[in-house]
Amino acid sequence: MPPDNTIETRIETDSFGPIAVPADRLWGAQTQRSLENFRIGVERMPVEIVRAFGLQKQASARANMALGALDPTIGAAIDQAAGEVAAGLLDDHFPLVVWQTGSGTQTNMNANEVVANRAAELLGAGRGGKRVHPNDHVNRSQSSNDSFPTAMHVAAVLAIEGRLLPALDHLAAVLRGRAAAFTDVVKLGRTHLQDAVPMTLGQEIGAWAYQVEAAAHGLRHALPALRQVPQGGTAVGTGLNAPAGFSARFAQELTALAGSSFAPAEDRFAYMAAHDAFVAASGALNTAAVALTKVANDVRLLASGPRAGFGELILPENEPGSSIMPGKVNPTQAEALTMVAAQVMGNHVAVTIAGAQGHLQLNVFKPVIIHALLQSVRLLADGAASFADNCAAGIEPDRAHIRRHLEESLMLVTALTPAIGYDKAAEIAKKAHHEGTTLRAAALDLGYLDAAAFDAAVRPETMISGG
Amino acid sequence: MPPDNTIETRIETDSFGPIAVPADRLWGAQTQRSLENFRIGVERMPVEIVRAFGLQKQASARANMALGALDPTIGAAIDQAAGEVAAGLLDDHFPLVVWQTGSGTQTNMNANEVVANRAAELLGAGRGGKRVHPNDHVNRSQSSNDSFPTAMHVAAVLAIEGRLLPALDHLAAVLRGRAAAFTDVVKLGRTHLQDAVPMTLGQEIGAWAYQVEAAAHGLRHALPALRQVPQGGTAVGTGLNAPAGFSARFAQELTALAGSSFAPAEDRFAYMAAHDAFVAASGALNTAAVALTKVANDVRLLASGPRAGFGELILPENEPGSSIMPGKVNPTQAEALTMVAAQVMGNHVAVTIAGAQGHLQLNVFKPVIIHALLQSVRLLADGAASFADNCAAGIEPDRAHIRRHLEESLMLVTALTPAIGYDKAAEIAKKAHHEGTTLRAAALDLGYLDAAAFDAAVRPETMISGG
Amino acid sequence: MPPDNTIETRIETDSFGPIAVPADRLWGAQTQRSLENFRIGVERMPVEIVRAFGLQKQASARANMALGALDPTIGAAIDQAAGEVAAGLLDDHFPLVVWQTGSGTQTNMNANEVVANRAAELLGAGRGGKRVHPNDHVNRSQSSNDSFPTAMHVAAVLAIEGRLLPALDHLAAVLRGRAAAFTDVVKLGRTHLQDAVPMTLGQEIGAWAYQVEAAAHGLRHALPALRQVPQGGTAVGTGLNAPAGFSARFAQELTALAGSSFAPAEDRFAYMAAHDAFVAASGALNTAAVALTKVANDVRLLASGPRAGFGELILPENEPGSSIMPGKVNPTQAEALTMVAAQVMGNHVAVTIAGAQGHLQLNVFKPVIIHALLQSVRLLADGAASFADNCAAGIEPDRAHIRRHLEESLMLVTALTPAIGYDKAAEIAKKAHHEGTTLRAAALDLGYLDAAAFDAAVRPETMISGG
Amino acid sequence: MPPDNTIETRIETDSFGPIAVPADRLWGAQTQRSLENFRIGVERMPVEIVRAFGLQKQASARANMALGALDPTIGAAIDQAAGEVAAGLLDDHFPLVVWQTGSGTQTNMNANEVVANRAAELLGAGRGGKRVHPNDHVNRSQSSNDSFPTAMHVAAVLAIEGRLLPALDHLAAVLRGRAAAFTDVVKLGRTHLQDAVPMTLGQEIGAWAYQVEAAAHGLRHALPALRQVPQGGTAVGTGLNAPAGFSARFAQELTALAGSSFAPAEDRFAYMAAHDAFVAASGALNTAAVALTKVANDVRLLASGPRAGFGELILPENEPGSSIMPGKVNPTQAEALTMVAAQVMGNHVAVTIAGAQGHLQLNVFKPVIIHALLQSVRLLADGAASFADNCAAGIEPDRAHIRRHLEESLMLVTALTPAIGYDKAAEIAKKAHHEGTTLRAAALDLGYLDAAAFDAAVRPETMISGG
Repeated sequence: MPPDNTIETRIETDSFGPIAVPADRLWGAQTQRSLENFRIGVERMPVEIVRAFGLQKQASARANMALGALDPTIGAAIDQAAGEVAAGLLDDHFPLVVWQTGSGTQTNMNANEVVANRAAELLGAGRGGKRVHPNDHVNRSQSSNDSFPTAMHVAAVLAIEGRLLPALDHLAAVLRGRAAAFTDVVKLGRTHLQDAVPMTLGQEIGAWAYQVEAAAHGLRHALPALRQVPQGGTAVGTGLNAPAGFSARFAQELTALAGSSFAPAEDRFAYMAAHDAFVAASGALNTAAVALTKVANDVRLLASGPRAGFGELILPENEPGSSIMPGKVNPTQAEALTMVAAQVMGNHVAVTIAGAQGHLQLNVFKPVIIHALLQSVRLLADGAASFADNCAAGIEPDRAHIRRHLEESLMLVTALTPAIGYDKAAEIAKKAHHEGTTLRAAALDLGYLDAAAFDAAVRPETMISGG
Repeated sequence: MPPDNTIETRIETDSFGPIAVPADRLWGAQTQRSLENFRIGVERMPVEIVRAFGLQKQASARANMALGALDPTIGAAIDQAAGEVAAGLLDDHFPLVVWQTGSGTQTNMNANEVVANRAAELLGAGRGGKRVHPNDHVNRSQSSNDSFPTAMHVAAVLAIEGRLLPALDHLAAVLRGRAAAFTDVVKLGRTHLQDAVPMTLGQEIGAWAYQVEAAAHGLRHALPALRQVPQGGTAVGTGLNAPAGFSARFAQELTALAGSSFAPAEDRFAYMAAHDAFVAASGALNTAAVALTKVANDVRLLASGPRAGFGELILPENEPGSSIMPGKVNPTQAEALTMVAAQVMGNHVAVTIAGAQGHLQLNVFKPVIIHALLQSVRLLADGAASFADNCAAGIEPDRAHIRRHLEESLMLVTALTPAIGYDKAAEIAKKAHHEGTTLRAAALDLGYLDAAAFDAAVRPETMISGG
Repeated sequence: MPPDNTIETRIETDSFGPIAVPADRLWGAQTQRSLENFRIGVERMPVEIVRAFGLQKQASARANMALGALDPTIGAAIDQAAGEVAAGLLDDHFPLVVWQTGSGTQTNMNANEVVANRAAELLGAGRGGKRVHPNDHVNRSQSSNDSFPTAMHVAAVLAIEGRLLPALDHLAAVLRGRAAAFTDVVKLGRTHLQDAVPMTLGQEIGAWAYQVEAAAHGLRHALPALRQVPQGGTAVGTGLNAPAGFSARFAQELTALAGSSFAPAEDRFAYMAAHDAFVAASGALNTAAVALTKVANDVRLLASGPRAGFGELILPENEPGSSIMPGKVNPTQAEALTMVAAQVMGNHVAVTIAGAQGHLQLNVFKPVIIHALLQSVRLLADGAASFADNCAAGIEPDRAHIRRHLEESLMLVTALTPAIGYDKAAEIAKKAHHEGTTLRAAALDLGYLDAAAFDAAVRPETMISGG
Repeated sequence: MPPDNTIETRIETDSFGPIAVPADRLWGAQTQRSLENFRIGVERMPVEIVRAFGLQKQASARANMALGALDPTIGAAIDQAAGEVAAGLLDDHFPLVVWQTGSGTQTNMNANEVVANRAAELLGAGRGGKRVHPNDHVNRSQSSNDSFPTAMHVAAVLAIEGRLLPALDHLAAVLRGRAAAFTDVVKLGRTHLQDAVPMTLGQEIGAWAYQVEAAAHGLRHALPALRQVPQGGTAVGTGLNAPAGFSARFAQELTALAGSSFAPAEDRFAYMAAHDAFVAASGALNTAAVALTKVANDVRLLASGPRAGFGELILPENEPGSSIMPGKVNPTQAEALTMVAAQVMGNHVAVTIAGAQGHLQLNVFKPVIIHALLQSVRLLADGAASFADNCAAGIEPDRAHIRRHLEESLMLVTALTPAIGYDKAAEIAKKAHHEGTTLRAAALDLGYLDAAAFDAAVRPETMISGG
């Protein structure tokens, strides 16, 4: 929104001329222009990007000083001011939305302006006076075209590493715990949603744990490409106006500040013109969403009922389930998780489309890519953690129900095939099914084997390992 | 493939010079070049497009003759030759794959060449001699840029109208029949896969029928935009080199030949530069895929078991279900239908991406758009018909199972809330659930109402209408 | 978040027992439980849904009173309190996130609780005392299962009708204005991004306008299905516990309150169990995104340069384009619009996946569907309006550049084919291309026609209509 | 299709009874039932799957014999018959379509039946006589549920390894070669499609090569998960009816037969119930499609013109480009490649949706997953190879055009900012732009630096490295 008449303003300037900005905000002219020109949606640039820009400006100032490219007094002030951005102290000074220029230039300038004004204050000068210049000092040796993607990479790595992987590891551990607790629960397996042969509940839950572990593994494999940053490439990748050695020194400073490892991009041109590393990472998020959907769907299937469904699992009762049906309890955590997953799969398509449309030296879909990716990371992390703590950790089997299902199943007939062959076994199962009787009765009636042989072969607890 | 040395060839020429083509084929130089330059995949241009091109060349020849733009002798020969293409007699002379030039020019030239050579034959001349010229005669007043999209529109309309809508209407009718047969089967409804309140099987299946009917309705709404064709726009939409009145006369001839209504595009430029009508139609296919997925999933859920699942529906047994588990019967038609639906949803994304990337006067993703769309139409049509005939038509309820589920349900307690309020009703349901007893016992035990009042209120057959 | 120790709380109760809630908030126990159990993401239930729930509760109270199903004193208080929600006065009392139970029950209860507490206050009673009961009074004759989708439909219709269609109509009008202004600018058309034959800038921009108009048309066609609401179906569609006539009376009251037309769903079961109407509407949004992508891409292609690109259009200069390259001006509005479009296409996949996964009587992906759809509506509306006002309205042709492109083009040769045939015309164009000369020189050199004939045929201004 | 009356048939039987099959085909009763029950689409099960089943049956027979689970005479015949399937000699005996049961059971039975009948023939017995039994012998120790996914894994690994990776490596090498050839071509870089600062054509093409290399790298990372096979898990993962050690021995035999490494799945349950490894691999294909789209789009942008576009690259002329515009040459290989990429992105969504919907012990979207994935592999491989050989290898710069663009660019002003600052540099560029003059003239006119200083700073060939 433009400043209204009732709030105090000051004048800031850029190459387009003067413009009024709210006096209590640190941003400058270009941020203000973006606010006025892009009144689109409600999605602000993610706070993770704001803070990554703090690190990026801080590391740049340090690299510039180390390479003799920036006055140390100004550099030190920038370092301190940018540190405040990195620490989240100046979040309120980043008002821009995601739907702006596709290079993220306006958010880079927002960072440049806030850091410049704050650094000027630290040096005892006023806001808007360009004692510290947003372009010439804060953005020194940089372009939006290398800085914004660098901030994207930093934000993505820190979010995946700091938030998503711990959540997935936690869910996997919870599931492993449940699997270990139920290795003795022999139950019916199901294929095509139809009764199949026996297995243990531990095996069933163990497969869920494996899927979550594999999803985390896939995300870890996406990190090396994300840890590369194009900083130092400036406008098109050549590094024009950046001193020799800037890329390397920057990565070193960034690694120290972020507490996580970063390196210069193997090909700076490719890292500015395209964002294949994000498309690949989004693919790993998509796989995680697929895995979590499978797990959550299985939970709600096995917990369906309680009396007219599969009814094999009992979930924690966390809240009333219905506004009209008293006493109803629903698998709400599973539902939240599958909704999250649907959005992540959709975001993956958005990232794919955006990633495919880079042209020549610049992909200009940077903000939508990082916004969608960070949303996916947050949703999967929180969704997995909530599901782990509020649902998975409290899953219990309904042992009586499980036992009844097992005993009634016609598919135990499979154990007879090594002895009597597939065709006769099928005949027994069909007879039992159509006459509504037991396998044992049907088998004995058909005379394909005697009672002792039947009882020796058809024992669920012996049917749970092999191969 | 290039002609090998062992097969007889003749020489054809185009503006690039001479080239050998198989002697027994009607195509010419440009088709041959495409064969050699685009050895990509195995997907040939759909036969529906080949035949639509027959109609398009035939209608063009007639319009040209009517407007005095084509020699009648040559025109009559083109008319006849193109009619053979339309009738499917020359399918084997269209060897090109989908993955060629994005304008479909090579397939348009394939049509021009085949029709030219066949028309020349009809006039007593040899192949390759240009007695009838592919560009100057067959393609008269046309460009690939208006002809290929016109063929796309023709193929899409005929496939949707002739194949998909009848299949959906058939499935809806089958489901309506089943719904009508089971209006007396009172059963438990389920929300969140959890036991809920009563309804009839007729109501449940009726909702499936409604979804299919609505999907067909949505497809019918997509037809008017598809019935518009850009023919007459030639290279960029202006109609350069086409006589005045060509668009209108062409549409009239096409309508007569196709037996289905077509009209000149409201904006020929837009209909060549973009394919929003196909993106919209693909959206309607996507909605149909979503609807069919819901129906098929419900069928397999309700038929799950037979002994350890929901077990309320009995499906036709069409084939052995398992290679290892004798006697197993699976919901295979439901599975085929949901697989089809997954591919249609994926194709919709392909069409969306391809549709978004038109540039300036021409979208050059025409072949992939029509290939994906026609595949989706075919798959939905065949999938719906197969599901209708091999599964839906034979669905039967397991009345005993359904009745047991209904009687055991705790959610019948909902009928008590008007009398005793939500909170007390919830107390009754919870007590019954945790003590494993009946609602009636729990209600009487808590003393919130007497037996007569309970029995009067909790009658499933009275709980199936209202509002 | 759970209430911390430093804030004042009161005790609210539900069927799970007592729980502390912040004293200054109107919500009750179930809202509080959801807050504590679903700490997932930052996306709150959209404010459009909150206000739609105001209308839904208000219309329900009125319908209940009209049908004698609710005490008039309590009903009047609910009417007033719900009206405050509808008016946006109580937005801050709806803290829940999207990622909750898939039925939206918790947000329906949030509405029930807020309205109940506020109505109780209006009646002089305290909060939490259930003078007005959230379930028995506010939710009377309703279930979350019919109320939440009803709110979804209301929010979607009002947003599309009130926000998106006006924005698209505005953009189309702006483009029509530009097209009208440039009917005399003859320029080169392009196919495959390659030089083609002449057209006018008016024709080119007119096609953009047509695409936007067609997109709006498609959205209007999606409205009738959205105007149907399942209210009155209660828990599974049957209408259990709702008085006869509730659906009809509710729709009448809702129409009056909303100022937009709504009707009872043709099949209430289908409208709760599935959300095909939203999948279809999302398909129309997807088509709009595709259309806007095409338009924006054309704008940035034609404005590329200014000196080393197509350079035919001059866009308004709104802000500095680069943090490193002084004086750079970029097509930023086009970029914002294509980013918006990428997210909308992704959201469409999320809606599709969510829509396909309804099971039995309830689709439990309701919140993610409406969240994604409303985001798409907002983004397209704001993006289109911003693009219209900040870019399209100020587009100007670079007439000198356009003229030079036209005159140099080799494709003017097309005008010769009616006279000399395709093959000779191709020879002329190739000669001119490879020798770097003009068509005229090449034509005369080859001797296929004389200068007078050439000059009579090759006149761009006569090549812009036909067919 | 059912056998018509005019063709000779024999009777085959399964547990459903007798059925006529064409006498000249090796398949049996279950294949025939599937043919009659699933008349859906035209897409046959991919030949890669058929041959992978040959390897799978062969390796199974060898493992069974080694573990004493199969009569050696019968085993040897199965080994030989399955080898014929693996070698592609019996492709015509696999008529089933993709759209069948979701477990692929019918194709597994097709393999069992063909191998059984062929093995029986080899043993001197007739077809249909069950001298070798499809279930009891050929399918010994197996289920469709472990065999079909094993065949999926084998087919995917062999196709990626044998077809796609070589094609991507080849394209990367071709691009590296072009990049090396043009390290001396200094040209204008472009961001936002707008003129930016200088770089070399070698750098530009090098970034394309890097993208292709990175895409290949991502695919190689997807292989380890694909090399794991669930064989030995039989019906639900437990290995019921398979002898101890079967998984390990099978993998060893398979590795030897396939000439590529395979291992038992880390979790057999997860590898049958879900297909996350395929979703992840499809994600890598999606990333490759994104990378190839970027490269192909850049090629067509830079080759646009020849006279009214960017016009910096000259592509090989492979065929006439237009049916109406003589002499037109289009970037057809780039178009084919981007169409391929659009289908791959769509297929990825199909695989994602299919992968997310596994339930309990079996994902029943197996055929659609492998069909889409193998199509994507084939299309990317062929598309990349065709683009490499028919386009990329022949790319040449238009050096004169490139030089003119470079010299005219206003963005060379960037080189002045270290000396005079961003704001003054912007003033120079704007003045030159609006007055249509050169940077040099504008700079001298404004007096911010003298001619010597300008000429020393603004030298494109010194602006191509830094950072």
